[in-house]
Amino acid sequence: MARFPFSAIVGQDEMKQALLIAAVDPSVGGVMVFGDRGTGKSTAARALAGLLPQISAVEDCRYGCTGEDKGTCPDPCSSGRVRKRDVPFVDLPLGATEDRVIGSLDLERALRAGEKAFEPGLLAKAHRGFLYIDEINLLEDHLVDLLLDVAASGENVVEREGLSVRHRAKFVLIGSGNPEEGELRPQLLDRFGLSVEVRTPTDIETRVEIMRLVAANERDPEGFAAKWAGEDAKILKQIARGKAKLAKLESGEDVLRDAAELCMAVGADGLRGELTLMRAARAFAALTGARSVTREHLIEIAPSALRHRLRRDVLDETGSTVRITRAIDELFG
Amino acid sequence: MARFPFSAIVGQDEMKQALLIAAVDPSVGGVMVFGDRGTGKSTAARALAGLLPQISAVEDCRYGCTGEDKGTCPDPCSSGRVRKRDVPFVDLPLGATEDRVIGSLDLERALRAGEKAFEPGLLAKAHRGFLYIDEINLLEDHLVDLLLDVAASGENVVEREGLSVRHRAKFVLIGSGNPEEGELRPQLLDRFGLSVEVRTPTDIETRVEIMRLVAANERDPEGFAAKWAGEDAKILKQIARGKAKLAKLESGEDVLRDAAELCMAVGADGLRGELTLMRAARAFAALTGARSVTREHLIEIAPSALRHRLRRDVLDETGSTVRITRAIDELFG
Amino acid sequence: MARFPFSAIVGQDEMKQALLIAAVDPSVGGVMVFGDRGTGKSTAARALAGLLPQISAVEDCRYGCTGEDKGTCPDPCSSGRVRKRDVPFVDLPLGATEDRVIGSLDLERALRAGEKAFEPGLLAKAHRGFLYIDEINLLEDHLVDLLLDVAASGENVVEREGLSVRHRAKFVLIGSGNPEEGELRPQLLDRFGLSVEVRTPTDIETRVEIMRLVAANERDPEGFAAKWAGEDAKILKQIARGKAKLAKLESGEDVLRDAAELCMAVGADGLRGELTLMRAARAFAALTGARSVTREHLIEIAPSALRHRLRRDVLDETGSTVRITRAIDELFG
Amino acid sequence: MARFPFSAIVGQDEMKQALLIAAVDPSVGGVMVFGDRGTGKSTAARALAGLLPQISAVEDCRYGCTGEDKGTCPDPCSSGRVRKRDVPFVDLPLGATEDRVIGSLDLERALRAGEKAFEPGLLAKAHRGFLYIDEINLLEDHLVDLLLDVAASGENVVEREGLSVRHRAKFVLIGSGNPEEGELRPQLLDRFGLSVEVRTPTDIETRVEIMRLVAANERDPEGFAAKWAGEDAKILKQIARGKAKLAKLESGEDVLRDAAELCMAVGADGLRGELTLMRAARAFAALTGARSVTREHLIEIAPSALRHRLRRDVLDETGSTVRITRAIDELFG
Amino acid sequence: MARFPFSAIVGQDEMKQALLIAAVDPSVGGVMVFGDRGTGKSTAARALAGLLPQISAVEDCRYGCTGEDKGTCPDPCSSGRVRKRDVPFVDLPLGATEDRVIGSLDLERALRAGEKAFEPGLLAKAHRGFLYIDEINLLEDHLVDLLLDVAASGENVVEREGLSVRHRAKFVLIGSGNPEEGELRPQLLDRFGLSVEVRTPTDIETRVEIMRLVAANERDPEGFAAKWAGEDAKILKQIARGKAKLAKLESGEDVLRDAAELCMAVGADGLRGELTLMRAARAFAALTGARSVTREHLIEIAPSALRHRLRRDVLDETGSTVRITRAIDELFG
Amino acid sequence: MARFPFSAIVGQDEMKQALLIAAVDPSVGGVMVFGDRGTGKSTAARALAGLLPQISAVEDCRYGCTGEDKGTCPDPCSSGRVRKRDVPFVDLPLGATEDRVIGSLDLERALRAGEKAFEPGLLAKAHRGFLYIDEINLLEDHLVDLLLDVAASGENVVEREGLSVRHRAKFVLIGSGNPEEGELRPQLLDRFGLSVEVRTPTDIETRVEIMRLVAANERDPEGFAAKWAGEDAKILKQIARGKAKLAKLESGEDVLRDAAELCMAVGADGLRGELTLMRAARAFAALTGARSVTREHLIEIAPSALRHRLRRDVLDETGSTVRITRAIDELFG
Repeated sequence: MARFPFSAIVGQDEMKQALLIAAVDPSVGGVMVFGDRGTGKSTAARALAGLLPQISAVEDCRYGCTGEDKGTCPDPCSSGRVRKRDVPFVDLPLGATEDRVIGSLDLERALRAGEKAFEPGLLAKAHRGFLYIDEINLLEDHLVDLLLDVAASGENVVEREGLSVRHRAKFVLIGSGNPEEGELRPQLLDRFGLSVEVRTPTDIETRVEIMRLVAANERDPEGFAAKWAGEDAKILKQIARGKAKLAKLESGEDVLRDAAELCMAVGADGLRGELTLMRAARAFAALTGARSVTREHLIEIAPSALRHRLRRDVLDETGSTVRITRAIDELFG
Repeated sequence: MARFPFSAIVGQDEMKQALLIAAVDPSVGGVMVFGDRGTGKSTAARALAGLLPQISAVEDCRYGCTGEDKGTCPDPCSSGRVRKRDVPFVDLPLGATEDRVIGSLDLERALRAGEKAFEPGLLAKAHRGFLYIDEINLLEDHLVDLLLDVAASGENVVEREGLSVRHRAKFVLIGSGNPEEGELRPQLLDRFGLSVEVRTPTDIETRVEIMRLVAANERDPEGFAAKWAGEDAKILKQIARGKAKLAKLESGEDVLRDAAELCMAVGADGLRGELTLMRAARAFAALTGARSVTREHLIEIAPSALRHRLRRDVLDETGSTVRITRAIDELFG
Repeated sequence: MARFPFSAIVGQDEMKQALLIAAVDPSVGGVMVFGDRGTGKSTAARALAGLLPQISAVEDCRYGCTGEDKGTCPDPCSSGRVRKRDVPFVDLPLGATEDRVIGSLDLERALRAGEKAFEPGLLAKAHRGFLYIDEINLLEDHLVDLLLDVAASGENVVEREGLSVRHRAKFVLIGSGNPEEGELRPQLLDRFGLSVEVRTPTDIETRVEIMRLVAANERDPEGFAAKWAGEDAKILKQIARGKAKLAKLESGEDVLRDAAELCMAVGADGLRGELTLMRAARAFAALTGARSVTREHLIEIAPSALRHRLRRDVLDETGSTVRITRAIDELFG
Repeated sequence: MARFPFSAIVGQDEMKQALLIAAVDPSVGGVMVFGDRGTGKSTAARALAGLLPQISAVEDCRYGCTGEDKGTCPDPCSSGRVRKRDVPFVDLPLGATEDRVIGSLDLERALRAGEKAFEPGLLAKAHRGFLYIDEINLLEDHLVDLLLDVAASGENVVEREGLSVRHRAKFVLIGSGNPEEGELRPQLLDRFGLSVEVRTPTDIETRVEIMRLVAANERDPEGFAAKWAGEDAKILKQIARGKAKLAKLESGEDVLRDAAELCMAVGADGLRGELTLMRAARAFAALTGARSVTREHLIEIAPSALRHRLRRDVLDETGSTVRITRAIDELFG
Repeated sequence: MARFPFSAIVGQDEMKQALLIAAVDPSVGGVMVFGDRGTGKSTAARALAGLLPQISAVEDCRYGCTGEDKGTCPDPCSSGRVRKRDVPFVDLPLGATEDRVIGSLDLERALRAGEKAFEPGLLAKAHRGFLYIDEINLLEDHLVDLLLDVAASGENVVEREGLSVRHRAKFVLIGSGNPEEGELRPQLLDRFGLSVEVRTPTDIETRVEIMRLVAANERDPEGFAAKWAGEDAKILKQIARGKAKLAKLESGEDVLRDAAELCMAVGADGLRGELTLMRAARAFAALTGARSVTREHLIEIAPSALRHRLRRDVLDETGSTVRITRAIDELFG
Repeated sequence: MARFPFSAIVGQDEMKQALLIAAVDPSVGGVMVFGDRGTGKSTAARALAGLLPQISAVEDCRYGCTGEDKGTCPDPCSSGRVRKRDVPFVDLPLGATEDRVIGSLDLERALRAGEKAFEPGLLAKAHRGFLYIDEINLLEDHLVDLLLDVAASGENVVEREGLSVRHRAKFVLIGSGNPEEGELRPQLLDRFGLSVEVRTPTDIETRVEIMRLVAANERDPEGFAAKWAGEDAKILKQIARGKAKLAKLESGEDVLRDAAELCMAVGADGLRGELTLMRAARAFAALTGARSVTREHLIEIAPSALRHRLRRDVLDETGSTVRITRAIDELFG
């Protein structure tokens, strides 16, 4: 299946924004995408992969070591040359076993040579890239938990089958799910950095436009990709510039205070809310080319950063997004 | 069990139409057949297999590579000659294991030679053909999900037992099921391209006619097949012509708009509805020999393409088919 | 346990008739026997086995190939001579595994020679004979389904453990069950050709007669068998004659119409009802030595052929048998 | 634990009678013993084992072949001499696996020599003797079913792990259970030949007597056994005489009629009731030294033979035993 | 963890008495200790182990054979010398598998030498000593059942994995449990010889005293042990004297009658109650140095011997202990 | 993930105090940390690890033997030199198997050399250090039980897979959990020495301060660590001094009495409450540099030591902490 160009995606601005923020600062945490069936959730995630610039890594290293990391992974990669390779984009296949995700004993070598060697799994493959999980709510809680743990710590610690291995595994976790098919536990949700909602467009023009683009892509995928290559290149440049800006960005005392006040006002548990909100606001500011983080950046990014962290209030049936924008109005309006 | 000739099937026009559309354009997605026990659901699906023209494939290649694909599959098929073979028609046996469906470690070679080789499964066997699942509602959701994923992407990605293999697996999925025996989850249903309903005929003449044909076939299968060979050949030609026409068919702006309006009117979730509706209408138009897709094609094919995508409305107990024809009447009538 | 002579069975006429019909035309489908504990359900099924004439098969062939089939099974049987052997009568042992039923990898050869050979199971053993399942309702639905599938298609298709084997498996399935111990799903029931009900006799004379016969058989099994040999031979001849007659039997248009009308009147789902009814009526007619199938044959066999296919009508608590005879009276009475 | 002499058991006459009947004619079917905890259920069963005369069997034959059976079992026993050995008394150990009960693949030989040999299980060991199951209601239904099947057919048919073996397995099944701990399914119960109830004695004298005997046995088991040896020998002689008499016993038409009438009166399902009742009455008559079976023998044995076969009547809360004796009074009183 | 001296245990007289009785006469059956968390249940059991005199056993014999048993266990121990060893005290570790408890196939030898040897388990290890199970109510019923069976018969019969082994396994079973965490089935409880209840002391002085002793033991375990060695030696002597006395003790007719009357009065099921009561009274009498068993011994020991055997009376909510002492008052008071 | 300096943690005084007490006297028992998501529970535990002074251990010994223990573990470590190594801090990875926790058969050696060697698990690794379990309530009860058992006894006894090994395993168990996600059974809770509650700070200043510190650490982890190194060193010194003081501390009769009275007043089950309370008070006194334990120390530490041991009183809905402080006021106020 040919990838659809990122820039050719019609609408879905919040999802695209969240993916770009995660691309600029992966430490923001994963992105959870909620939405109806057939709204192109996975199309956007897959399109993002087509945008990313290549990375430098030690040749043949199964752990994607950079030149500096060379020789520090379980592979004997210290003599390899550094080469360019595509940013990893791992699409967790349905039915992938825990073994295959975290890695396992290399049975072939164990049987042939009687050695206990580690065979890296998808977590190693995803290092320095993206790990995409479609219908994450169908995955066992246990495995989601494990994935979130690794995504947060940037390290995969394996203690099983007599193996004791650890290796780097820094990646952006992207999950998609349909809320109608069963929710994630709040404790799991809360560990995603951002969450976005996508909906089917309701105006005829947009829908006809999408049909036209999809048909054009199906008739001639190469021509279609060529046509949108310029737009995609602009976005790639925007991400690169954002990454460069990030370290130098200022975030003043007043913006920290705004973040804390907003989190308390909407009732987000713990401190993870304001820490993520600040990180996302910084990445967003960097993406827009700003010099310092402002209240406007905070406001823009608040729904994505906080929507999935709100304590449920039985007496207040208002949706999460509405509660956040209302709090913004009251505090800063 | 000898196959019953496709053209000798009495009635069941909607099912036959859907199968022909899928034969012309497999990208329409699978066909789901609902119906009572004993209505010949599987007879029709099996009859279709007897109609299909042979395909060219690399000799002995277990992945059915075409001449162009030669050497790109996990088999060392690059030196093989291209030969004709029957279109694959895989009838998923009850009790087939996930291993056997998606392929698995070749234990024989692993034990004998200590090598980790992949043994292709039924998905590889079905490539370029049909995969038929009787009583799909008895299959585990997990396996249905996997089959639909592969059918949609045209690729089988295997990540298990230390194996990491991918190969082409383009096929039309045909499922049959009895709604009385438990439904598929809406999320699974929605991923089938078309759905049809078959019922037991209620007039005596038709039933006597069917008994007569079945008895004739049982008494002398070869003679019976010979008698209907001409009719079957006509249908084969019709499919071939439809495939050829498909690429050149026009579908004007107004038909796209009709499709979007119809989907919104009946309340089909997401965009998958209108995308499939357009594809099916194109294939149907090609099958009838038309030069461009018209509103009439849309109307004809709408029930099969949309029936299984309607959101259930608790206040409106009307059946799906009725809601679709009513919407057609209101919009275009 | 010595077999009880078929002709010495007191009463139970419907069960005996159904078994004879299945012996004459196995394509009628299996026989399901319902009844109280201790009514001799299995005694009759086992007695039938003692009646059947020997068959010709390739010597040592584990798939029971006839002279014509020689060399077409998974065994290398092409050089064998054709010999007489008993008609197979397989009594599915409680606790038989799915492996043993459908066949499996021959572990011995796999371990010894590293070869992946198929070891045929009970389905191969039952080919050209009978497969008896006592208390079929205690078997897993899954296994019953599989057995019915094979019984219907006459072929066992195995796709597991890296094996891909198919072989002939034509047999009459006989199931017995006590309705008090949990029913079969209607979908499974419907796939049996005939069903019969057996009850404990309620008159003293019959019960004393049975006790006398059982005691006589226990005291002197050989003498008892000798005494009834003549009666059993007559039945054997009747079956042989019925088989010979079957192909030449006429079944006029009016009888087909009667069958269709009866099925619609009693509300049997699908077309399987009338197709089976006609087949059973033909076999019954052949058994009685008639030249053509008449309405009387239909009426005689209708309860066995239709009883288990009736849709349950919540408002009509009348038993299935009563509903069938009432419909017969109304239509033909 | 030393065995308690059979003749030293105080009270519990019904249980002792049932065990003696089963010893005289094993074809009566197993004995089910119901009773409170601590009433000596297992003591009596174990005591019976100490009474039984030795049998002749082929030396080292693991299937207990008699001289006549020599060479017909799965063992190569044809060259063995015939020797005396104790009557087998197998006490099914808690946690015995199905494998160990029915026999299994001999793993040792499979691994060493690559041969698929059968290792006989407890069913082979129990051949020609007793199989005792304490707390049979704690056993899985599936295993109980299997044991009753083998006990009834006298043959163990094994079809698993690629093995296909059958061997003789004639034994008396004795089950004990506490009705407070969950009942057996009626379908399982019904397949036991006899059932007895044991209760804690309620008069002080009997209880003190039992304490005295138990203490005497604990203080000096050998002396105690010697003291009761004479009484035990008498019982042994009685069993031997009963066995010899059995074949020549007459059972007139009128007694058969009495049995049938009694079974119909109490509402025992099927014919198994009267067949067992007659067998037990014959064995009981033989045990008492009578020349023909009389109504008195029937009456004496009826509660044990019928008690567990009564259909439960929701409107009649009377216990099974009471209903039987009342029916006896009405019919014969 | 250093053992706390038995004689330094404050209070808990009933528990200490029961443990001493079991040490004098193991045939009394196991001891079940009920009580709150943190009341020193396991401390007392472990302390008892420190008291026991050494035993003589064949050197290296894994089945603890005495000089007389030499060569009769599954080990080739016939040539070993007899040596002193500690009385076994096996503390069943949480998570011990059934394999490890009853013994299993010695996999090492099976793989290395292709031999099927038995590897004894914890039951063999506990022979002639104590088997302690903390939180016995957390153990599976199945395993408890098995342990009680072996404890009662003094023999471990293993029939699994193609093994058929039996060896001596005489030990005192001590279970502890917290009734708040789920009870044992009455059928399991009833098979323990004695049961005791321990409670947290409720007077400050005792609690401060315990704190002082615990602290003293923690500060200087060796000094603490030395300080209490004399008291422990006295108890050891008392046990030895009791064992010697036991065989010669008289128990008159009137005491047997008292026991039977008491059991009937409190409503203990079966005869196990009075048999255990007499055994425990004898052991207690022996421990106190008496020449014959008297009613006073019975009364003293009755609560421990009967408390867990009382039928529950829905109308009488009185605790078991109260019902026993009330019955004693009425009968003997 | 870089560790956050212990001294830079804002607030959370009770948790920090409990961790320091456990560091001074590990025999206090584990620490259970309750709290909302995102309150830094694991940050504090991980920070503590960064503070601890190195220990001396035999080089390469996998059981962490001290110089004195040398040669007494299952490893052949007797010839090793003693070296410094970091205090072990084992972070139980999600999905760690029981095998890996308690150790298991070394499969590699078993396959290669046919030897049954023990491969130590995480319990061996944690010896002399800390074992941290995040979200302990998600762990199976069985595993928690096992961990608490080992933590209490300081010894890991392994009886499985034919292995029989024991080794030292002294460590402080730290569990963290969110009470909203399901509680631990009271029986498990009660076995933790101390429990603390952490909450999200509710004043803006603290929250902004935390954001500032977290951001500073993220920008420049090394500089941040350097800045707080002095404060961390002070705490390290305080722990060392506390450990040294502990042995010489006096605890007078009156304080023991206070402890017993307080436990009885709040209704803590068993004696574990007062024993733990005294130990914790001693450690706390040592930490503060006091010469003897006073009532003030008791009062300070009482909530952590008793909070999780209170019997639930259905009529008194007051929280555990409130009930403890109220009792303190009434007794000592």
